[in-house]
Amino acid sequence: MNGCEYMPNGQLIFVGLGLYDEKDISLKGLNELENCNKVFAEFYTAKLGGFDKNTFEKKIGKPIEVLSREESEKGDKILDYASKEKVVFLTCGDPMIATTHVDLRLRAIKKGIETKIVHSGSIATAVPGLLGLQNYKFGRATTLAFPEKDYFPTSPYTVIKRNKEMGLHTLVLLDIQADNDVYMTANQGIELLLKMEEKLGGNIISEDSVICIVGRAGSPDPVIEANTIKVLFDKDFGPPLHTLVVPGNLHFMEVEALEVCANLPKEISKKLQKL
Amino acid sequence: MNGCEYMPNGQLIFVGLGLYDEKDISLKGLNELENCNKVFAEFYTAKLGGFDKNTFEKKIGKPIEVLSREESEKGDKILDYASKEKVVFLTCGDPMIATTHVDLRLRAIKKGIETKIVHSGSIATAVPGLLGLQNYKFGRATTLAFPEKDYFPTSPYTVIKRNKEMGLHTLVLLDIQADNDVYMTANQGIELLLKMEEKLGGNIISEDSVICIVGRAGSPDPVIEANTIKVLFDKDFGPPLHTLVVPGNLHFMEVEALEVCANLPKEISKKLQKL
Repeated sequence: MNGCEYMPNGQLIFVGLGLYDEKDISLKGLNELENCNKVFAEFYTAKLGGFDKNTFEKKIGKPIEVLSREESEKGDKILDYASKEKVVFLTCGDPMIATTHVDLRLRAIKKGIETKIVHSGSIATAVPGLLGLQNYKFGRATTLAFPEKDYFPTSPYTVIKRNKEMGLHTLVLLDIQADNDVYMTANQGIELLLKMEEKLGGNIISEDSVICIVGRAGSPDPVIEANTIKVLFDKDFGPPLHTLVVPGNLHFMEVEALEVCANLPKEISKKLQKL
Repeated sequence: MNGCEYMPNGQLIFVGLGLYDEKDISLKGLNELENCNKVFAEFYTAKLGGFDKNTFEKKIGKPIEVLSREESEKGDKILDYASKEKVVFLTCGDPMIATTHVDLRLRAIKKGIETKIVHSGSIATAVPGLLGLQNYKFGRATTLAFPEKDYFPTSPYTVIKRNKEMGLHTLVLLDIQADNDVYMTANQGIELLLKMEEKLGGNIISEDSVICIVGRAGSPDPVIEANTIKVLFDKDFGPPLHTLVVPGNLHFMEVEALEVCANLPKEISKKLQKL
């Protein structure tokens, strides 16, 4: 006992680390880290390609306990701490994109723990922006999962098809299995899309379709490419993360943006503008 | 002449200020500000409710030249500087969401000016997250504009209708006329939606419809509300910015999130869960 009978309630602060390295966090996020009692992090829902935990721990002057997928989903440890102390939970991108973080927040609030969210850059807005595509022309987003033995979900294909029918672009996130350090490449993603086309035959993806690829969004040297699938299929886009965009109808300024920012060849952009 | 014959090319760095105040910028963004020769900003495409320009100028140790809508769109001044020096262009949210910034970037690249983007938190991901709604269940986003004399665009209604038909939520951004310091309130937005319903009769918005409102996303005290239109219609949600979400089909966890985070009354959430 230190003479203080009153134990204030704890707090759980979700802080987004942004897209790529230790410098993508906001000043507000850094403030919260400096003023908290305990820091947890999870890196299984996404990966920050340029993030060095040791460097960051030195910067914030305290250790970071990285939780496994199981620990993050269970959440008990975080909630235990947060019911007594000021706890920061670090996540990649904007903190509330992952359903498991929303779930954790709800459980905290129900336990009477005050919660706070410190927002940050997210792949969902960065990728359209890097390509120069207009945000309001994107339909529903989708994620490609690694297929397993008897499991080959084709719902992403349906999402893309519906978006295309309305002339909309589709942001296609690629599977992450961070526990095994496996990140789906753009090439694997394209291969899956072609397989889905073969299976479902909706006539939306072929070797001549234009696809957009962003690698390492938020890094100093992001890869930004738009071309036909047959040209991009075998190319090496470097380390993860990769993201795909299947374009719908393109505004002439979007076509120009793909030419200027994403190396779309003129002969292809001419064809697109005729559509 | 200072004896240096070689004039290196300039650089144009788009830096996002994030959502609310001077502390929402990333460390990377702050670094760029510290190392640049000239800082421009525009605040007509969005507003940061808690941002104080003087405080921020002191922090970065240099003045910020705020451009009017016309100057930003024209862009000549920025491009002139950026062809010779390292220029930062500050914008609210993530920098490439506004079409006019994409346009400026294309013109810079075509002039041989190196460009860079420093991402930041955006309303497009923050609002779904604050409500606890799942990002991949959002369809196309839309914006409500102030109607003018003979101008009453109803395309937002069509976007919401299509999204709803697919069970998807719609992020509804509200008009900003920063030059006149006029920001559409959630109430005005709801009124417009009801008028569109009256005009188009698609049976998607009524006084009994549930709508979600977020005010001042990213601030220490955001307003987060979900209820029927008739309950929310006359409520005061405080200073701008406001954003609406018209929900589609809600997953049970989303309903729970609206209850816990957005004060959705139990008797309404029960009805929603039956749908």
